[in-house]
Amino acid sequence: MLQNTKANVLKANQALPKHELVKFTWGNVSERDPETGYIVIKPSGVNYDDLTENNMVVLDLDGHIIEGTYNPSSDTKTHLEVYKAYPQVKGICHVHSTYATAFAQAGKTIEAFGTTHADYFYGTVPCARILHQSEIDVDYEQYTGKLIVQIFEDKDILATPGILLKGHGVFTFGKSADQAVHNAVVLEEVAKMNYLTLTLNPTANPIPQYLLDKHYNRKHGKNAYYGQKK
Amino acid sequence: MLQNTKANVLKANQALPKHELVKFTWGNVSERDPETGYIVIKPSGVNYDDLTENNMVVLDLDGHIIEGTYNPSSDTKTHLEVYKAYPQVKGICHVHSTYATAFAQAGKTIEAFGTTHADYFYGTVPCARILHQSEIDVDYEQYTGKLIVQIFEDKDILATPGILLKGHGVFTFGKSADQAVHNAVVLEEVAKMNYLTLTLNPTANPIPQYLLDKHYNRKHGKNAYYGQKK
Amino acid sequence: MLQNTKANVLKANQALPKHELVKFTWGNVSERDPETGYIVIKPSGVNYDDLTENNMVVLDLDGHIIEGTYNPSSDTKTHLEVYKAYPQVKGICHVHSTYATAFAQAGKTIEAFGTTHADYFYGTVPCARILHQSEIDVDYEQYTGKLIVQIFEDKDILATPGILLKGHGVFTFGKSADQAVHNAVVLEEVAKMNYLTLTLNPTANPIPQYLLDKHYNRKHGKNAYYGQKK
Amino acid sequence: MLQNTKANVLKANQALPKHELVKFTWGNVSERDPETGYIVIKPSGVNYDDLTENNMVVLDLDGHIIEGTYNPSSDTKTHLEVYKAYPQVKGICHVHSTYATAFAQAGKTIEAFGTTHADYFYGTVPCARILHQSEIDVDYEQYTGKLIVQIFEDKDILATPGILLKGHGVFTFGKSADQAVHNAVVLEEVAKMNYLTLTLNPTANPIPQYLLDKHYNRKHGKNAYYGQKK
Repeated sequence: MLQNTKANVLKANQALPKHELVKFTWGNVSERDPETGYIVIKPSGVNYDDLTENNMVVLDLDGHIIEGTYNPSSDTKTHLEVYKAYPQVKGICHVHSTYATAFAQAGKTIEAFGTTHADYFYGTVPCARILHQSEIDVDYEQYTGKLIVQIFEDKDILATPGILLKGHGVFTFGKSADQAVHNAVVLEEVAKMNYLTLTLNPTANPIPQYLLDKHYNRKHGKNAYYGQKK
Repeated sequence: MLQNTKANVLKANQALPKHELVKFTWGNVSERDPETGYIVIKPSGVNYDDLTENNMVVLDLDGHIIEGTYNPSSDTKTHLEVYKAYPQVKGICHVHSTYATAFAQAGKTIEAFGTTHADYFYGTVPCARILHQSEIDVDYEQYTGKLIVQIFEDKDILATPGILLKGHGVFTFGKSADQAVHNAVVLEEVAKMNYLTLTLNPTANPIPQYLLDKHYNRKHGKNAYYGQKK
Repeated sequence: MLQNTKANVLKANQALPKHELVKFTWGNVSERDPETGYIVIKPSGVNYDDLTENNMVVLDLDGHIIEGTYNPSSDTKTHLEVYKAYPQVKGICHVHSTYATAFAQAGKTIEAFGTTHADYFYGTVPCARILHQSEIDVDYEQYTGKLIVQIFEDKDILATPGILLKGHGVFTFGKSADQAVHNAVVLEEVAKMNYLTLTLNPTANPIPQYLLDKHYNRKHGKNAYYGQKK
Repeated sequence: MLQNTKANVLKANQALPKHELVKFTWGNVSERDPETGYIVIKPSGVNYDDLTENNMVVLDLDGHIIEGTYNPSSDTKTHLEVYKAYPQVKGICHVHSTYATAFAQAGKTIEAFGTTHADYFYGTVPCARILHQSEIDVDYEQYTGKLIVQIFEDKDILATPGILLKGHGVFTFGKSADQAVHNAVVLEEVAKMNYLTLTLNPTANPIPQYLLDKHYNRKHGKNAYYGQKK
């Protein structure tokens, strides 16, 4: 069951150390199965080298384990909240990548200082507040998900497919697990470029809206001309 | 046809990830064929691992596709403007390498703070302004090329074979595709050294003209004595 | 004798260059043997590639060599002081890893700016003062150990299993040599994140105590739910 | 002739890219042959991958080529000046390593902020001024060597075996080519640590003299106890 989706999730998780987005077991990726609507996610605390399709965990959107003998990622409820609110999201990636996490720790958003950013993120990547103690007392991971959902309520989550969580790390989104990881790589690189930009020139300005539009749309707009026709 | 030039362009594009100048498909290299005058360039959005001589795209200077079934790089018109204006340019490389792009995002030129710079770039590497909306509305990539051409009008483009584009990235030039990539590696390393220099000492000064002359000329001048006689 | 412990110490020392925590011979790891209570430690100044189980040095807690023909690490007495004072410490790692050492050289503690820190270190990682000349004159390495012991007197050393030594480097602790090295990797990564955080935002604040508690306890508390049940 | 020394110089030059001290052909190492007193040095502008024992160049101290069909490194005269003045120097390494060169470009010395430095360099690593135009007009490389010699006149060159050249790069020294390269690796790492220290805490202080003495002497003093007895 769900063999394709398990294979995708396995591969996407194994891509995290290859792209140097994680140390040890510090990241997790999930994907929504197109047929059943179930979510396949990494087991908690298992090394990427030890992952197989068989130790992936399958859950329904309410968090009931459908298949798998391992505990799912401790961040599972955060993933589920986002999948429930945004049907267009098919893959989610969570990491503590170094530069993006530094922005999260500094409590700063990632603004569009260049076209590298504009090629993937249509505007500022937001930075969510730290949860209140009362929220953490009830359910830390679920309230983290609710906060993410709320921040994207008036935005197109797949047009700006990433968010920083203050004092914590990064979530990125996509139409697949692979694309969510791809966006995490881009966000980390953009965060590094922006770190260097801001420490070189603290008053640097984001690019103008019309350049942001141009780059985003030549890749993702309806008249996109980047890449090959499929 | 153009087998040598295609092989050169393939190799030069494959060198980009080896030198860590790109993520994913974020860079492109082209070369002018010495016999036909045609330009061979990377296909748009194709992974470096999937490139072969056969999917390279051959164009004339007006952008007509002479050979190839793939779309050429979305930045092709920028390359063509430079080839049309400067016959001495035989290879062009475009990347978003991290440190050089940070200078571009900060809107800062790369000054000659040391002899590493002087060995390859005879003076300050310029930083072009962001295009006006009216220019982007007409033809973004072509006007980018026109702007580069204008900036080098009163300079020797092969003596300072690189330019930053504000809020965007880097173009470098050479007498071959290989040399253009070589210059992109140097520019990225010089950008990193200059970033560190300026954050250590914000009032650091460029080296004096006579030291710039000495280093540039011992490598490129008519009495150059660096390297082996050919 | 002590074959298991020797194998652990060998592997833990060889992990130092793999994790890029050391240049040349700049780090050492030891472990306490569970049966004999003896300490097994790296020989001084031997390259990691040349280490074998047989050139490990076995000592009692007073520093008498029980087995081995090599000189033990020059930092041995520091290890022994900590083992004597804290029976729960079973492994110790000493390195000059780049970012953590920069905090030590700057004389700054490593505060908990994020959950990456909170997942492993329950609060601020302290920075010990430089020894007085009088202490160095008597026994540099032993007094370094005494100072570490004193700083953890009113703390749980395995809950905040690391310390910076001003102007010097890092010691980390664990329930095994492997865990001590693991904590050194985490401390270096956290130091890098904090360096970036502080240079982006010099007035950044540590995370609130309740978030520190939540993350530390979901991994290490009595109701921990991170990872798989053993 | 000089087969041992050629092998040493070959190996030492090949170590430069392995230690990431150079891009392309940007560094050179030489060694003094113990029997003949001749100097063996890298040929100019040859890639490290293409080096063999046979293309090494052998010179006497006055710069006459004794053996070899290649041009010697363009920095040869700098090496020779140092060998002539300091018979105890047996190996010399010149690189533009990133962090050390940034200090050189910033015109800053490398102070002893920690014991990593003290383990190899007995005090501040100096930064030589830029040569005057008149000196460059006569002989750039020779006057560079004369300036280095002058700066070490009242110092023990092998106790602080490295120097920065303002706006240029680094020279390091040793009792062999291998040791000179070793010292270049250390100087680059110490430069990186000091860069991070100073950007974290611009008023950080060097370690006290007695700690510098302790670390330098436990490794190099007459009662040194670091490492194994030979």
